Formats: sequence, C-alpha cells, structure tokens
Amino acid sequence: MENKKVITAGIIIIGNEVLSGRTKDVNTSTLAKWLNSMGIEVAEVRIIPDNEAIIIETVNILRKKLKYVFTTGGIGPTHDDITAESISKAFETEYGFHKEAYSILEKYYRPGEFNEGRQKMAKMPITSKLILNPTSGAPGFYIENVFCLPGVPSILQSMIGGLNNILIGGNPILNLTISLRTVESEIAKSITEIQNKNKDIEIGSYPFFRAGKLGVSIVLRSSDKIRLDQCYAEILKFIKTKHIEIAEEI
Amino acid sequence: MENKKVITAGIIIIGNEVLSGRTKDVNTSTLAKWLNSMGIEVAEVRIIPDNEAIIIETVNILRKKLKYVFTTGGIGPTHDDITAESISKAFETEYGFHKEAYSILEKYYRPGEFNEGRQKMAKMPITSKLILNPTSGAPGFYIENVFCLPGVPSILQSMIGGLNNILIGGNPILNLTISLRTVESEIAKSITEIQNKNKDIEIGSYPFFRAGKLGVSIVLRSSDKIRLDQCYAEILKFIKTKHIEIAEEI
Repeated sequence: MENKKVITAGIIIIGNEVLSGRTKDVNTSTLAKWLNSMGIEVAEVRIIPDNEAIIIETVNILRKKLKYVFTTGGIGPTHDDITAESISKAFETEYGFHKEAYSILEKYYRPGEFNEGRQKMAKMPITSKLILNPTSGAPGFYIENVFCLPGVPSILQSMIGGLNNILIGGNPILNLTISLRTVESEIAKSITEIQNKNKDIEIGSYPFFRAGKLGVSIVLRSSDKIRLDQCYAEILKFIKTKHIEIAEEI
Repeated sequence: MENKKVITAGIIIIGNEVLSGRTKDVNTSTLAKWLNSMGIEVAEVRIIPDNEAIIIETVNILRKKLKYVFTTGGIGPTHDDITAESISKAFETEYGFHKEAYSILEKYYRPGEFNEGRQKMAKMPITSKLILNPTSGAPGFYIENVFCLPGVPSILQSMIGGLNNILIGGNPILNLTISLRTVESEIAKSITEIQNKNKDIEIGSYPFFRAGKLGVSIVLRSSDKIRLDQCYAEILKFIKTKHIEIAEEI
C-alpha cells in the first residue's frame, strides 16, 4: 500500500528464548496495534539472539532505513541482558550510569536492596532519554530514533503510553474486518477484482477454523476512512450477490 | 554459543496480518522447537509484508547465509498469496503448474470443485519438490534449501513431520529449566559467574509473573548432555547455598 502520510517503523525482538521457541512473541502485536493507531506502519520485524555483534548490526541497518526502531528484551539485570551496552556501541556513545535512571531506581528500592544487579539496570547510553516504567521501576530508554523496551509483555504494555507524545505519527491506519462462512478459493476471484479496482486499500484474506467451522476473514486497511467505507460497500455487495453468509466477528 | 555441530536456519514469516498486529505469530515457536530437536538452531527470524520485492530480497539474503530457510504464509488461493511466485523469481526459475501438485489437488476436490482459486495452489516453481499436506490437501514445496509452508498454524504443524528425513540435522539441542522463587537481581551475580565458567552452555534468565507470584526461570541449552548436567548441578548447588526456593515447573 502506498500512502505518503504513513510512517514506517521496525521492531527488533532480542532474545534466545524466542528463537528457541520457548517464548512466543506477543510484543510485536502490542507494538503494531499501538503504532497503527498513530499512523505508523510496522515495515519489518527481526527476531535476533542475545549477541552483541548481531544487535549492533541489526540496529544500525534498521535505524537508517526506517523512521522509528523499537527493541524489546535484554534490559534486565542478568548476564544475558546486553541490549543497553550493544545500543551504546551501535551509536558509538558512552555506556554508563544514567543519572536520572540511577536516581529513579535508588528511590524505587528499599534501603540496602539497590544491589549490583539492580544498579546494572541504570546503565545505558548516558545521553539517552528515559521511557518510564510504572510497573516495575526500571526504565527503558531512547536514543535518536531507537526505543528500547523490556521483553516482559505486561511491563512493555504499561510503558508505551509514555511515548504517545514523543512519536510523530501520520494518519491513523483504520481497518474493517468482515468474516464469512466460505472458503478462500470461492471468493478469490471476486476479491482479486475488488483489489484491482481499489489499489489504495490493503485487502487481506485470512482463513480461520473455529469451533469446527471454516471461514474467511476479509480485512481492509487504509488511513482514508471514506475510501475504506467505499471498498467495504463493494465487498458487501459482492457477498450479497453470491449469497455468502456473514459469520460473527472474530 | 559456539558449537560446530549445530546447524543454522532462518525463518521468514510472510504476512501483513502479522505486521499489523492482527495475528500473533506462533509458527516461529513450532518450527524452532521442531528444528532444535534435530540439532538445527534458528539464527534469525524476519517478519515481512506480502510484497514481492521484499520477499525476493529477504529469501536471497537468508538462503545464502544459512543452511536452511523456512517461509510461512502466502501460499493460498487469494490475490495476497504471492509467496510461490516470489520464490520462483528469487531463484530465477519458472513459475507454473507443478504436475504432481496439480494432480494431488485435482484428486482432493470433488468433480467441478477444482476451480481457478484452487488451481492457483498448484502453481509454484515447477522444479520444486512437494511438502505434503495431510490436513487440507494443498502442498507446500521446497527448492534447494528454501522450504515454503502455509501460515495457518494447525496446517503447518501437520506438514513439518514430512521433512524429518529430508533435513540434515546436528546433535539435538537439549535444554533444562529450573524455576525459582526469586527475582533476577538477586541471582544475577551468581548466574554470571556460572556462565563465565561454562561458556559452552547457553544460560538464559527469564522473569515470570504467574498467579500473582514473581519468579525466574533459568534455562540451560546445549547439545552436550554431560556438560549440560554438570552446569545444572552447579546451579542447584548455588541455589541450595543461597536458600532459594524452587518453584513448580513452568
């Protein structure tokens, strides 16, 4: 879909636990929905290991190619949390205690509990800005167009709202979904014709199997509400003509 | 982790529905666990849109860099299913009806039901080999080291077993997990020391929040069972010394 007002972002999921299959990534979905609501499209996601050289290379490729880059994971207190130091190296900037982060964490923990592991969470590119963490204290950070968030989904989710006024978005990307009691091959030709007549609308077709029943969800996406409604009307018309049953929303 | 007997693979998740956040990718986890059991490590995952130029570029980068590449999504009957044609272009090989695939699909559908949309699913690089589909008929395919699977998780899962005798694996990657009633910062220093003494073992530390309780899972990974057990014993020793409670397995 070509749309000059849509801004692009990349996501880098950092973590061996995702590459080994132990953990299923849900942060991409959270970030993508939130970014779409601000008119920012996710153009690419890369899942990479906890490996300094790979983190540096991937961050440097994506931050030059896309308007915004989000990383998730690797900013905790343990030995395998190497994102903050790797980001410092990617930007060739000093890695050390961030004064504001140190102060936040020092206050967050009870006296005597601000140990070495916890202190590590205050180390990051010293010139970076913080992303506050209302859930568990330890902040994320951003430097230029790269935003570093934790990997734990509930914590990540609680932090992103703090960036709403920092990111410059485009027109929100709207979507309309209609679920049908049919199979893809029955509607493929008609949907292709509608797509060809509406090249500015992204039309997706997704089969589903739910409660033993087959169906297809047609998803329309665009930042232009009027065009979206026009295209939706065309879909409805073809469904009526073909006598296809509409399924409940999924 | 360096291990010469471990073979690397890449995964390319193709689909706007994943990049928009509508669908959460679970195929990475399924593929990674299955590959690990055959001694194949997932080195990298990329999630990309239904865009021909991007599919071609990504496939060509990863197939030269890694032993195996798996793609998921985009091999159905609709206009947004462009994986098979894009793969043909990546390999500069003819895209057209695959005789065996056509024959399978022709038999699978009842007379008169093998329509244009369904026939499209028999189109792929004509020199490719098939990956049979016991769930819904339409086969995947592979060409050289690139294996193309569907995006629907249950169908993908039913197909991968057919590749067990085709892939050449290494030593299976084993893992041991121990879950603790503690927080990461309490164990960070000790785990770092154990990691430094056991550089051949991949040690991951993953906080969890379950039923209102905090914990940390320590995951050890290696293809060497003896070394894995030795390292696990070191972890158990440190846990006992520190009087840390073991949580039930998660």
